[in-house]
Amino acid sequence: MVSAILLVSCPDRKGIVREIASFIATNNGNIIHFDQHIDFQKGIFFARVEWDITEFRIPRDQIGEAFKPIAEKFSMDYRIHFSDYLQKVAIFVSKQGHCLYDLLQRFRSGDLRGSPELVISNHPDLRPVAEFFGVPFYHIPKSRDNKRETEEKELKLLEEKGIDLIVLARYMQILSKDFVDRYRNRIINIHHSFLPAFPGAKPYHRAYERGVKIIGATSHYVTEVLDEGPIIDQDIIRVSHRDSLEDFIRKGKDIERMVLARAVKWHLEHKVLVYEGRTVVFD
Amino acid sequence: MVSAILLVSCPDRKGIVREIASFIATNNGNIIHFDQHIDFQKGIFFARVEWDITEFRIPRDQIGEAFKPIAEKFSMDYRIHFSDYLQKVAIFVSKQGHCLYDLLQRFRSGDLRGSPELVISNHPDLRPVAEFFGVPFYHIPKSRDNKRETEEKELKLLEEKGIDLIVLARYMQILSKDFVDRYRNRIINIHHSFLPAFPGAKPYHRAYERGVKIIGATSHYVTEVLDEGPIIDQDIIRVSHRDSLEDFIRKGKDIERMVLARAVKWHLEHKVLVYEGRTVVFD
Amino acid sequence: MVSAILLVSCPDRKGIVREIASFIATNNGNIIHFDQHIDFQKGIFFARVEWDITEFRIPRDQIGEAFKPIAEKFSMDYRIHFSDYLQKVAIFVSKQGHCLYDLLQRFRSGDLRGSPELVISNHPDLRPVAEFFGVPFYHIPKSRDNKRETEEKELKLLEEKGIDLIVLARYMQILSKDFVDRYRNRIINIHHSFLPAFPGAKPYHRAYERGVKIIGATSHYVTEVLDEGPIIDQDIIRVSHRDSLEDFIRKGKDIERMVLARAVKWHLEHKVLVYEGRTVVFD
Amino acid sequence: MVSAILLVSCPDRKGIVREIASFIATNNGNIIHFDQHIDFQKGIFFARVEWDITEFRIPRDQIGEAFKPIAEKFSMDYRIHFSDYLQKVAIFVSKQGHCLYDLLQRFRSGDLRGSPELVISNHPDLRPVAEFFGVPFYHIPKSRDNKRETEEKELKLLEEKGIDLIVLARYMQILSKDFVDRYRNRIINIHHSFLPAFPGAKPYHRAYERGVKIIGATSHYVTEVLDEGPIIDQDIIRVSHRDSLEDFIRKGKDIERMVLARAVKWHLEHKVLVYEGRTVVFD
Repeated sequence: MVSAILLVSCPDRKGIVREIASFIATNNGNIIHFDQHIDFQKGIFFARVEWDITEFRIPRDQIGEAFKPIAEKFSMDYRIHFSDYLQKVAIFVSKQGHCLYDLLQRFRSGDLRGSPELVISNHPDLRPVAEFFGVPFYHIPKSRDNKRETEEKELKLLEEKGIDLIVLARYMQILSKDFVDRYRNRIINIHHSFLPAFPGAKPYHRAYERGVKIIGATSHYVTEVLDEGPIIDQDIIRVSHRDSLEDFIRKGKDIERMVLARAVKWHLEHKVLVYEGRTVVFD
Repeated sequence: MVSAILLVSCPDRKGIVREIASFIATNNGNIIHFDQHIDFQKGIFFARVEWDITEFRIPRDQIGEAFKPIAEKFSMDYRIHFSDYLQKVAIFVSKQGHCLYDLLQRFRSGDLRGSPELVISNHPDLRPVAEFFGVPFYHIPKSRDNKRETEEKELKLLEEKGIDLIVLARYMQILSKDFVDRYRNRIINIHHSFLPAFPGAKPYHRAYERGVKIIGATSHYVTEVLDEGPIIDQDIIRVSHRDSLEDFIRKGKDIERMVLARAVKWHLEHKVLVYEGRTVVFD
Repeated sequence: MVSAILLVSCPDRKGIVREIASFIATNNGNIIHFDQHIDFQKGIFFARVEWDITEFRIPRDQIGEAFKPIAEKFSMDYRIHFSDYLQKVAIFVSKQGHCLYDLLQRFRSGDLRGSPELVISNHPDLRPVAEFFGVPFYHIPKSRDNKRETEEKELKLLEEKGIDLIVLARYMQILSKDFVDRYRNRIINIHHSFLPAFPGAKPYHRAYERGVKIIGATSHYVTEVLDEGPIIDQDIIRVSHRDSLEDFIRKGKDIERMVLARAVKWHLEHKVLVYEGRTVVFD
Repeated sequence: MVSAILLVSCPDRKGIVREIASFIATNNGNIIHFDQHIDFQKGIFFARVEWDITEFRIPRDQIGEAFKPIAEKFSMDYRIHFSDYLQKVAIFVSKQGHCLYDLLQRFRSGDLRGSPELVISNHPDLRPVAEFFGVPFYHIPKSRDNKRETEEKELKLLEEKGIDLIVLARYMQILSKDFVDRYRNRIINIHHSFLPAFPGAKPYHRAYERGVKIIGATSHYVTEVLDEGPIIDQDIIRVSHRDSLEDFIRKGKDIERMVLARAVKWHLEHKVLVYEGRTVVFD
């Protein structure tokens, strides 16, 4: 079964659900999921609609065009995706491998649906991991002086491969505004604290110093402001005085992996909508 | 704002969402929530639809009738509720007061919307609590011999008060099949274990003996089979060898209260659908 | 059974456990709990030792004096408590009652061991709650101009009653440095966020604006710097885009109650040691 | 730094802590951890004591002998381990690789301290994973008829390699009583439910059928009775009607991995004591 997924946001008013549902039913589609949300404070309507297109009367490459009149009538922002398209994913890493292993294993087992096309790193350490999973590894060392050139090299690679999603899997470098703009809402980072607490460098060290009783991780879309992008998921684990800084780091890894994997999964399944610095996640 | 809430289940087929949405939009209603679910294994469609009826063209007492043709077309089971009706709640307790306090406080603060009409108990202990919150308390002692008479007395009280929902807030008596049938899917019990583990008596004792590392609670609709009704919510808390049986009981109370309160809240907001021994909870 | 509880911290070196254990065994005490911790980074030894004094050879009022030589040998900070002393507790509240109900109910049921002596509030709203539980209620209105006088009134009350512990159960006022100094490490506050995120006013509003996916609460000792005192406990609950600000506030209440109750319980059982802005909690 | 770890259980009486602490201090050891527990119901004393032996006066191979008089005086069961000994671990798997990846990665990163010596499987599928991590892989197919022979082959391998701990990382075979007896309290299994719910086959299927709202995993020592061994750790994750059986299985994997890894870690650090079908875990 192949399905189409419509992601919509627009000012709320009467009749939106009817129009969308009519568009699908009239053309012989069968709705599988209809998730809708209204932000009453701001008067915005959101929906994620997924329908079986096996017997749909509109050819898939014309669905977007056919939906346009409805979109215009309600001033919708909208995107249409298809479930059989395997999104191309680039993973950026530094030296820490736990998130990379985890993601690649989930892709291999099918728990994540997508195609990891390349791993980019400023360090050579994780090449064997990428190669074990059969994913090309690019070692692109970075220094203060060559940031612009290396980003250009990276962007060229991403374009050649037709990358849809970039995952920063404990990548300890900050991307330029230009880079971020090219992949707006398509770069997912994992930060190793429950934001907005401990943004920036060494969150576990600072958490340890502060004497917190929980540590956490946050997956979010990358924006030009460090660790301030729209949050996709967060979770925590309890710690105590018995935990050393090393224990914080070790325990945190499990949370980082899960919180990152959930965000990647939701993104790949077109379940995340971004608006005004926040997300709607139709999980 | 007053809203209507439609709860529907029927065999899945094309066009259901369209018909429901058209019914609402055509009559000038504005959809606030549209939650839908399909059980693909069994081919069943479920929905909870809530819409603003301020400007709805069909008078509220005729909405059910007006919806009938659609319901028949799709062989729907359906119910319609209105947000401004305050459901009448009876709470059954024995000696333990933590769930009673908790529920009554939530009703008073408005976190639970409903009207606690009476507290029934086989022990007199919790009368002061009910009275503090201004809820009539009925002490109906039970013995092996008077079960039938006391249930009749209770049923009479429930009918006089027009009770919509019965909450067994750590009520340590088993209701007869007749009683349960009268309030099918309208009696919520809290069981102090994560079912299906430790059904029946003394779950904390048995959990302690077994040496588990988590304890939990389960809220469910009551059926004629003890602790086998459809589960509405469950949760757990960690325990360790440092916890005595008394600690299990004490820690468990917090979980019981929260798990029961969530179930009551969801029921009162018409968010729970029961089918084949399970629940769909549109939370 | 009556037990003595020794709380100790000192520079770590060889022989500390032996000396403490010998002191107890030689005098015919039976150790019930021996919890020890070393902060290796700072080289500090901590212990909480509890022993049955039923047959202890040193009279209880001389135990502190008898222990002094050991304390001096190891440069210990130490305190000795007895399990049969019921600590006197003052609870400060404003208008929100959920934590007050919860604490008083736990005291009544025996889940918290201590004696709630008075409730102080700058608003009259919660008087009925205090009175229902038989605890004197003092309404002390506060304004910008009378802070000093009202604090003096409060301090006088606290002294008259011989208060051991002050609990700020959603008390929305800031205490002066003088006040805090008088009850150093004996004032517990509940803050409705996972600190260090969202210190200060309106944390739920700011959490909602930021689009977080978890909300939380933090219990901590009060210091002169707002929301920066040593953390005793923290916990969180998941939220989503479906939760309104009102849902944040409602869900948060359950976390606040539990996190505050745990802190009060641990404090009353002499399980919390404070050092350098952090806590050791022998739970 | 090298440390000795003493694990002790005995009938509780006065003076035990003193004797152990004196033994260490008198011989110039420095206690790093002193964890103690008393089961008051049964009158049993437990302790885990770890001390720095850098300047300890008793040579390490004589410590056990030197401690004997104390052990006899108090009728102790005891074991002494040394922190610099790298335990040898065998991992048994079937076809599912998520726990195997996870364990091997944790060994490689140093988060688990131990030496994975071999992987044994009744299926060839996971050979590449073992080989990637440089661990010998033995494919030992099993059928109804060859259980005895294959177990003998396995036991021979385990003995040759001097295996200390066997981990059943989603190994779908039942070990014979003889096998279990040889490695009493040294075989850790992960079961994919929160025991005692859903013991035996297909727990996720049964959980799905029952309509539970949480799923979980349990790590435990293997005994001759299936899924009834002493529980080391358990945890859960929330599920809803939106989760299909496949989602249960996928979400469960994360819990299985973490709950198994924690049990293995605690075992390797000599933090687990077994008694009367339960565990004391000094985490």
